[in-house]
Amino acid sequence: MKHRDEFCQARRGEIQLPHGRVQTPVFMPVGTQGTVKALSHQMVEDIGFEIILGNTYHLYLRPGTEVIADFGGLHEFSTWNRNILTDSGGFQVFSLSPFRKITDEGVQFRSHIDGSKHMLTPESVVEIQRVLGSDIQMVLDVCTEHGIDKKSAHKALTTTTRWAKRAKDAWQQSLGDYRGAAFGIVQGNFFEDLRAQSAQELSELDFPGYAIGGLSVGEPPEVFEHFLHYTAPLLPTGKPKYVMGIGTPDYILSAVEAGIDMFDCVFPTRVARNGYFFSRDGRINIKNERYRRDTQPIDLDSPISMYSRAYLRHLFKAGEMLGPMLATRHNLWFLHTFMTEIRTAIEENRFLEYKNTFLERYGRGMGNTI
Amino acid sequence: MKHRDEFCQARRGEIQLPHGRVQTPVFMPVGTQGTVKALSHQMVEDIGFEIILGNTYHLYLRPGTEVIADFGGLHEFSTWNRNILTDSGGFQVFSLSPFRKITDEGVQFRSHIDGSKHMLTPESVVEIQRVLGSDIQMVLDVCTEHGIDKKSAHKALTTTTRWAKRAKDAWQQSLGDYRGAAFGIVQGNFFEDLRAQSAQELSELDFPGYAIGGLSVGEPPEVFEHFLHYTAPLLPTGKPKYVMGIGTPDYILSAVEAGIDMFDCVFPTRVARNGYFFSRDGRINIKNERYRRDTQPIDLDSPISMYSRAYLRHLFKAGEMLGPMLATRHNLWFLHTFMTEIRTAIEENRFLEYKNTFLERYGRGMGNTI
Ligand SMILES: [Zn+2]
Ligand SMILES: [Zn+2]
Repeated sequence: MKHRDEFCQARRGEIQLPHGRVQTPVFMPVGTQGTVKALSHQMVEDIGFEIILGNTYHLYLRPGTEVIADFGGLHEFSTWNRNILTDSGGFQVFSLSPFRKITDEGVQFRSHIDGSKHMLTPESVVEIQRVLGSDIQMVLDVCTEHGIDKKSAHKALTTTTRWAKRAKDAWQQSLGDYRGAAFGIVQGNFFEDLRAQSAQELSELDFPGYAIGGLSVGEPPEVFEHFLHYTAPLLPTGKPKYVMGIGTPDYILSAVEAGIDMFDCVFPTRVARNGYFFSRDGRINIKNERYRRDTQPIDLDSPISMYSRAYLRHLFKAGEMLGPMLATRHNLWFLHTFMTEIRTAIEENRFLEYKNTFLERYGRGMGNTI
Repeated sequence: MKHRDEFCQARRGEIQLPHGRVQTPVFMPVGTQGTVKALSHQMVEDIGFEIILGNTYHLYLRPGTEVIADFGGLHEFSTWNRNILTDSGGFQVFSLSPFRKITDEGVQFRSHIDGSKHMLTPESVVEIQRVLGSDIQMVLDVCTEHGIDKKSAHKALTTTTRWAKRAKDAWQQSLGDYRGAAFGIVQGNFFEDLRAQSAQELSELDFPGYAIGGLSVGEPPEVFEHFLHYTAPLLPTGKPKYVMGIGTPDYILSAVEAGIDMFDCVFPTRVARNGYFFSRDGRINIKNERYRRDTQPIDLDSPISMYSRAYLRHLFKAGEMLGPMLATRHNLWFLHTFMTEIRTAIEENRFLEYKNTFLERYGRGMGNTI
């Protein structure tokens, strides 16, 4: 941590990882299957990103860990030379698999691709991520939905802590040639005492970093905000704090204000493929009739500023692949620029001012265009 | 024309156009809707292409000529600064429209997008292409299928010639700020005397260049080859000769040998989107199991040589957009390199030797891999 804003929890830091330093707070693009959809990794690097996500569940099932092992890891396989954070695969088992069963040992599930049976354990998940060569790996946790009862939430939490302990041991034994970090994941659903208990138990395990899991899973924004601001300070100050599933300017600003250093989300790239462009004046739905003859670019500073809104609209109306390619490039550039501005604002102790100014214009635009 | 191979009809030439010189023989990538599918125009230019195609029928219907007029033409609208050849739209009216009616005046049809009624005439087609700013425009012709009777073929031919005359007049009147060329199209279906008559009538109209239309429409390869070699010499030696729908190495070599200077086809980019990569050893179907752990690139010299076959296979198996993006780039690079080699071989009077050597290896590979 290099600096904390004098007027809120927002923090400016730097994480040293095997594939270089990462400036925080940072937004990380998602490359689920070893590719950030609709871009080459070279394009992602050209925008300036220092870290992206990969997805253990997907890569384990396809192309298969053994294929990636042939290449010496995911960096070489996917031609990305900066850092990679991989999730544990737990979230996908819970959201994609047509069948799953949790035991003390781990989680059994069926592949959503071919129905084949598999089992992930805290130890096997560490080993898979070691083979992938993850610069930051996540431990296996038990994910829960918004709205479950406290007893279920407590049970999931107990398993999560037990698994975290086993994962920590396995990770420590995996170190050597492999030098990636491992992050613990705080659970506890939407119960303050369970969140506190989880944060306490995981802090004792002394992981290099921590994620706050189980947020941004469909709960109302004010509930998300409450639990984010409640949980973040319970984690060790000197370590990176990561929240999954955060990718809109308003949620990012809220997370940064709570002292979160890292976030990722498929939202910016997913909506890009449907013709939504981020802008300082809110999100633009390029398919709107109003852009039919608009000769202006989305943003004069964007790497796609040579293209007019009319041309971009045409690409989406005609179903041309170049539309998603350009929109994805634009949205990731927008978030990268946004994060750079946020980092400077924190250094200059004016994060709250930046946040309010940004949201005022952004919200006015959202009101107009959506 | 700069040089003719001493041992066959293959010719090496250069065409001076409003957006620069074009070295021939040339393969032209197809950008149907103002974009070469799965690439940006910058990527197409980086490969080295000096001319691409645009499609009058599609662009006229969507985004509409008036939108492109706002930008001063298709070059500015689509950010492509080299040459553009546009077809007349006739072929699409005949192949895509759910309804069409030919009169002396022109062709009535309904849009395949929204069913709206439209009419194209020889004069309106010239005007649309003038607005698009086409560097080479094609006149409206009557397309016919393989297998129709001679009377129908003759009737289509008669209309084609009458329309060509009207188009030539309209084109000459359109010149001024607009400096694009107009090419006539030889028809006559698969009847030698009708082909001869069409070539004769169009030659008298003295167009800047000529296309041989109505070939590569589903006829057997030997029929294609016969009519290509029969028709090509009937056209004026000093003018560019163009055949539509040619985009595989064997057909390209056959066309070059017949003295053809220009060709285009969606085939190389369409099959790319389905995972087929051109190589000197035949076409590679990257989804084949044999490439699952193949750490080699498709071709060491390709602009995508940093990617392994295993990674490319993974992208296609996982349905990732980067797969079509990379395959398209590769196939167009392959054809561009192929054409460069062909041009050098002609200059050195060894085209036939080049052709035989290339086809021997290519055919052996095709036998193995398909
Ligand atoms: Zn989780
Ligand atoms: Zn035609």
